[in-house]
Amino acid sequence: MTKANRRWILAARPEGMVKESDFKLETSPFPEPGDGEILVQSEYLSVDPYMRGRMNAGRSYADPVGIGEVMTCQGVGTVIRSKSDRFSEGDKVLGTIGWQEFGIVQDAEARRLTSSKAPVSTALHVLGMPGLTAYFGLLNVIQAQSGQTIVISGAAGAVGSTVGQIAKIKGCRAVGIAGSDAKTEWLSSELGFDAAINYKTNPNLLQALKTHCPEGVHGYFDNVGGTTTDAVFPLLAMKARIGICGQISQYNRNQIESGPRLLWQLIVKRATIQGFLVFDFADQYREALSALGGWVEDGSIKYKEHVVDGFEQMPNAFIGLFKGENVGKQLVRIETTD
Amino acid sequence: MTKANRRWILAARPEGMVKESDFKLETSPFPEPGDGEILVQSEYLSVDPYMRGRMNAGRSYADPVGIGEVMTCQGVGTVIRSKSDRFSEGDKVLGTIGWQEFGIVQDAEARRLTSSKAPVSTALHVLGMPGLTAYFGLLNVIQAQSGQTIVISGAAGAVGSTVGQIAKIKGCRAVGIAGSDAKTEWLSSELGFDAAINYKTNPNLLQALKTHCPEGVHGYFDNVGGTTTDAVFPLLAMKARIGICGQISQYNRNQIESGPRLLWQLIVKRATIQGFLVFDFADQYREALSALGGWVEDGSIKYKEHVVDGFEQMPNAFIGLFKGENVGKQLVRIETTD
Repeated sequence: MTKANRRWILAARPEGMVKESDFKLETSPFPEPGDGEILVQSEYLSVDPYMRGRMNAGRSYADPVGIGEVMTCQGVGTVIRSKSDRFSEGDKVLGTIGWQEFGIVQDAEARRLTSSKAPVSTALHVLGMPGLTAYFGLLNVIQAQSGQTIVISGAAGAVGSTVGQIAKIKGCRAVGIAGSDAKTEWLSSELGFDAAINYKTNPNLLQALKTHCPEGVHGYFDNVGGTTTDAVFPLLAMKARIGICGQISQYNRNQIESGPRLLWQLIVKRATIQGFLVFDFADQYREALSALGGWVEDGSIKYKEHVVDGFEQMPNAFIGLFKGENVGKQLVRIETTD
Repeated sequence: MTKANRRWILAARPEGMVKESDFKLETSPFPEPGDGEILVQSEYLSVDPYMRGRMNAGRSYADPVGIGEVMTCQGVGTVIRSKSDRFSEGDKVLGTIGWQEFGIVQDAEARRLTSSKAPVSTALHVLGMPGLTAYFGLLNVIQAQSGQTIVISGAAGAVGSTVGQIAKIKGCRAVGIAGSDAKTEWLSSELGFDAAINYKTNPNLLQALKTHCPEGVHGYFDNVGGTTTDAVFPLLAMKARIGICGQISQYNRNQIESGPRLLWQLIVKRATIQGFLVFDFADQYREALSALGGWVEDGSIKYKEHVVDGFEQMPNAFIGLFKGENVGKQLVRIETTD
């Protein structure tokens, strides 16, 4: 096994909308694991909106990817060399492989995938970071209670689609906002959302939301920000809770966008907004994964994978997230080349 | 005692900045209390920024004042007729008298002022609604902890000046933002704020705040909103808490102002914003007033009254709030006309 490794590096910091030329495909020597490390052959790599933030120079909640460095991502794959006593060749694992065909992962940061109840790819969405984000955002941040109306922006994504289904499990009314009829149809017909609104074909999103939230919005799980959030604010119920998970409408802007100042409405409604990251709840991952696993197994949570084939498709799949191309979780499947 | 009552009614809903012609001084028949009511002769009437909201047609957290109705306010005065077994003529009381020389107050809504330790006028600020607002906003909403840096906008007002002093009592660093050198001088030299910034003479408020908040802003007590809040946001510390008490910069606008979208920063800092009203904490007023009273008595909380004389000055005193004319609590003292 003397082949080389292909990997996507960050070629340039994007100006505004990220484009393919911001990345560069290069071939590197085959990586060798050191002590306590494993070499993983990628099977599925994940692209997620948060990676856009890592492409900028400034630090947000994590350090940026440097120019010339491999883009970061989680992936699932097979251990092909192990210098760890915790993993053996052939093990299926989840880890921060990066945008490459073969990646070195520290054994302490890898998770063994043993369940036969769900495909290994689910560790990248419903039974992984996006699912956990949905779980903690809805239950710990928004503190959703039975009978409440929960509005979810970016509702057809990996996080949003799980939020709405957990809301239904908890006895809430789930109202999703998404960007195509295919998405809203999926949310309403297959996932059990009480309503789903296509913001691109509803010129008056506020009015559409009002129709579907007759008692106001008790919880708002926000992945999007911008004008979507502007439409939700006037409908907040008393003591509403808003969880800010992402602001995908803002990530590809060179400058901070302006919008209506909304904070005074928080006084009127005695409402709370909280920004969060899934890592804040790391000590509760185990119980959350157990709950999510049960719901997937018994069919109360469904998911959809939007898979594109071919390692060379990584940038396109990533850019597609910002064009709203994916219904459900965007994944790239890596063909085995030997 | 057959005299008439003078009162200020709402003559017109303001367009933008409130002006004197939005009010009208009229004379009405002398009011007669019914069962369970008392007639109070005004001694001090309070003007507060929140009244601007009541002048608009839309409901915010309370119903608007109707055109032709007496403007609302709290006042302190003397009971001159009582049809309540809870109050006698001569009692000093706090109540929602309204902008008038004589007002009827329900006995259940009046508070007897018995303390000889502080002037009765303090029931309109440090030992009343503004003081309680400061107390609960800082301790219950922001949850200030010793060692934290607390930034206060509108710091020289009745609420803000109390917030900073409670912050000092609790071992915090207090940094105030106000609109004149007289105000910042008062905050720094007399009230013990660690720093006070005149936003009108500091063209770069962000930089000025950065200098005085080397460890970032753990808590932000916001009375002002707008560009002041824009300057605070980039300095938020991890897990910062923001209490939205008022947005005085926005109250006199015909249209909602635009400003930079800030919510993504909440994710980076895992920060929380909460709007609140003092009424939310009504069940804890007694303990809070007891604490505030003790601090006023032992000198750990100081206050300043900005008193204008003459009932006819009510509109001007009120309008002055939005011009930043008051240092400390704005009051109108009503001369006795008999």
